[in-house]
Amino acid sequence: MKKTYLLTPGPTPIPESVSAALARPLIHHRTKAFEAIFEEVRAGLRELFQTKQEVLLLTATGTGAMDAAVANLFSSGDEVLVLNAGKFGERWTLIAQAYGLGVVELKAQVGDSFNPRIVEEALKDHPEVKAILFQASETSTGVRLPVKEICAAAQAAGVLSVCDAITALGVFDLPMDSWGIDVLITGSQKALMIPPGLAMIALGDRAWKMAESSNLPHFYFDLKKEKKMQAKNQTAWTPAISLIVGLAESLKLIREEGLQAVFARHEMLAQATRAAVAALGLELLAKKSPSTAVTAVKVPAAIKDGKLIPKIMRDKYGVTIVGGQDELEGKIIRLSHIGYCDRFDIVTGLSALELVLAELGHPVELGKGVGAALKVFQSEAIL
Amino acid sequence: MKKTYLLTPGPTPIPESVSAALARPLIHHRTKAFEAIFEEVRAGLRELFQTKQEVLLLTATGTGAMDAAVANLFSSGDEVLVLNAGKFGERWTLIAQAYGLGVVELKAQVGDSFNPRIVEEALKDHPEVKAILFQASETSTGVRLPVKEICAAAQAAGVLSVCDAITALGVFDLPMDSWGIDVLITGSQKALMIPPGLAMIALGDRAWKMAESSNLPHFYFDLKKEKKMQAKNQTAWTPAISLIVGLAESLKLIREEGLQAVFARHEMLAQATRAAVAALGLELLAKKSPSTAVTAVKVPAAIKDGKLIPKIMRDKYGVTIVGGQDELEGKIIRLSHIGYCDRFDIVTGLSALELVLAELGHPVELGKGVGAALKVFQSEAIL
Repeated sequence: MKKTYLLTPGPTPIPESVSAALARPLIHHRTKAFEAIFEEVRAGLRELFQTKQEVLLLTATGTGAMDAAVANLFSSGDEVLVLNAGKFGERWTLIAQAYGLGVVELKAQVGDSFNPRIVEEALKDHPEVKAILFQASETSTGVRLPVKEICAAAQAAGVLSVCDAITALGVFDLPMDSWGIDVLITGSQKALMIPPGLAMIALGDRAWKMAESSNLPHFYFDLKKEKKMQAKNQTAWTPAISLIVGLAESLKLIREEGLQAVFARHEMLAQATRAAVAALGLELLAKKSPSTAVTAVKVPAAIKDGKLIPKIMRDKYGVTIVGGQDELEGKIIRLSHIGYCDRFDIVTGLSALELVLAELGHPVELGKGVGAALKVFQSEAIL
Repeated sequence: MKKTYLLTPGPTPIPESVSAALARPLIHHRTKAFEAIFEEVRAGLRELFQTKQEVLLLTATGTGAMDAAVANLFSSGDEVLVLNAGKFGERWTLIAQAYGLGVVELKAQVGDSFNPRIVEEALKDHPEVKAILFQASETSTGVRLPVKEICAAAQAAGVLSVCDAITALGVFDLPMDSWGIDVLITGSQKALMIPPGLAMIALGDRAWKMAESSNLPHFYFDLKKEKKMQAKNQTAWTPAISLIVGLAESLKLIREEGLQAVFARHEMLAQATRAAVAALGLELLAKKSPSTAVTAVKVPAAIKDGKLIPKIMRDKYGVTIVGGQDELEGKIIRLSHIGYCDRFDIVTGLSALELVLAELGHPVELGKGVGAALKVFQSEAIL
């Protein structure tokens, strides 16, 4: 017998009541019953995005919403500034290039974030730029970006801030309206605790204005059409109905816990994970600006083949975490604390990690990492 | 948000595939579809009981099968020997007395098991006794009884051995036929990993012989009638259909894991729990003969109100364990490792226990209990 534990930065575990909602008899989407659920979901998403704008649901994964943002906002010949702190930053560049846009790219050192002043300077150096495309949390390196400061810089320069918050929204505070985030994007399989298949995107007034004159080709991802339809609790095309029913349930769970409590829980789990990492003699990849969503840890020197850590954790202990991608393959492991995750999920992940580190030759005093995490939990009374 | 963890000696957690089976559309029981499932269940139960006898399903909880055993085996005026090692031993006495039987009771000191020689002597002193009624695992004190030796003593004295294995069958080896267990009883909500509502009872040839002349009143629990019906894949009365469908699935899981692997897993989890208990400076209630099913731990001296331990574990951490019953109330806690339970369930229970012990004033070096458990897991390669 082997139970399985999903400690990855997407997909994340599904709460039992959401699984039950997903298993309800499928309803048709052109019905009052669907519209009532959709209206509830719209209200819940506005709370989560902390915005008065319409939050549009797309039947796609997060990358689809990133594609939709580019295709609906810009026009041929436009230039954008991309903040590339890793694989997902690079994705903004690839999407912009796919639509023929000019890309000015700021590339961070692996594990680093961006100093807002560098962003301000880049905007001064490139006055032709129409928008900054960036992540709130760069999942490939476990880095958190200074969203508030980036948005302020964008506003000061009169350009749009387009924020991929796929692994960040519902993890830490990202108040769209008060911070002036012009475009905010997320996906279903992260802090929203439902399976992959839905993306959400909200545009502020400045973004809608730019969208009016956009001339890039698109059909399925037609945000203006979706805005019109979704205001009437319908979607342009057949939506992923069961996922929307599940989303209504997960938004209810978030509302019941309270958004600030959700953020505080994620912060506590991230701190506990970092404390354990230090106690085990391991090093964070993102030392200065670690993300609350995912903790990237360098494979210790004693372990030559870092890919074995996630492999043995999964095959021998049933605990799925992820390693590094591309040039970080075999060099880091990533422990997620996103979504339906509590103290004992962290303890489970750390226990399996301790056993595997010891097996692979990194010196471990068993229980030391878990103990450091428990000390953080002991000092918190939020849950 | 608070996830909940069920670490009690019944009910125990339900595997996901069993939950899915329980949620299937209900079928009618007087159908070929039901009979096919019932036949599969009968075969699975014979493997689990390690017997060629028919294992009868009763729609009742375990106590119902204990009642059925007494009502179907004995006649007015009969005497039985009860081995009372705790609350469930006492239950045999109460049932026997309810049917007007004479009871000779051997009572163990709290936390103690029985020396088989004492049982042999009691049988010599009471030649009128028709059977020994006992537990394989006494859940109230976490004691394991020497089932093989008790059955040998019963056979030597020409009396029946009637074994309540409600928290033991599927936890440790109890081969009915080869050990000559005359009556073997279990329930659904323990190692069988389904909700409460089904009991199972198997009678050996000597027990069926005694049942022929039984004259105690009974109607619902009519084992002869059930034997006749169940051989044809039907039950005398309407059965708990969905639980039987779930049982087919859980028996499949047990078969896939393999019975010996199931026993080895339980043994490993019990050893890890005991190692953690020792590392935390706590004391077992059952020092000499601890059960593989449940570990009973004395509340340490520093904690005046022992009832607070399960209360805070449940209310603050979502981890449900049980305390002591009757005279043991507030004096012990009981950690279960029965059924759908793996290494990280143990780690979860121990983590919550460590936090609560520290909160209540027992000196704890956080992580030390978990570390001791991890050391046991490290030395095991069975899973």
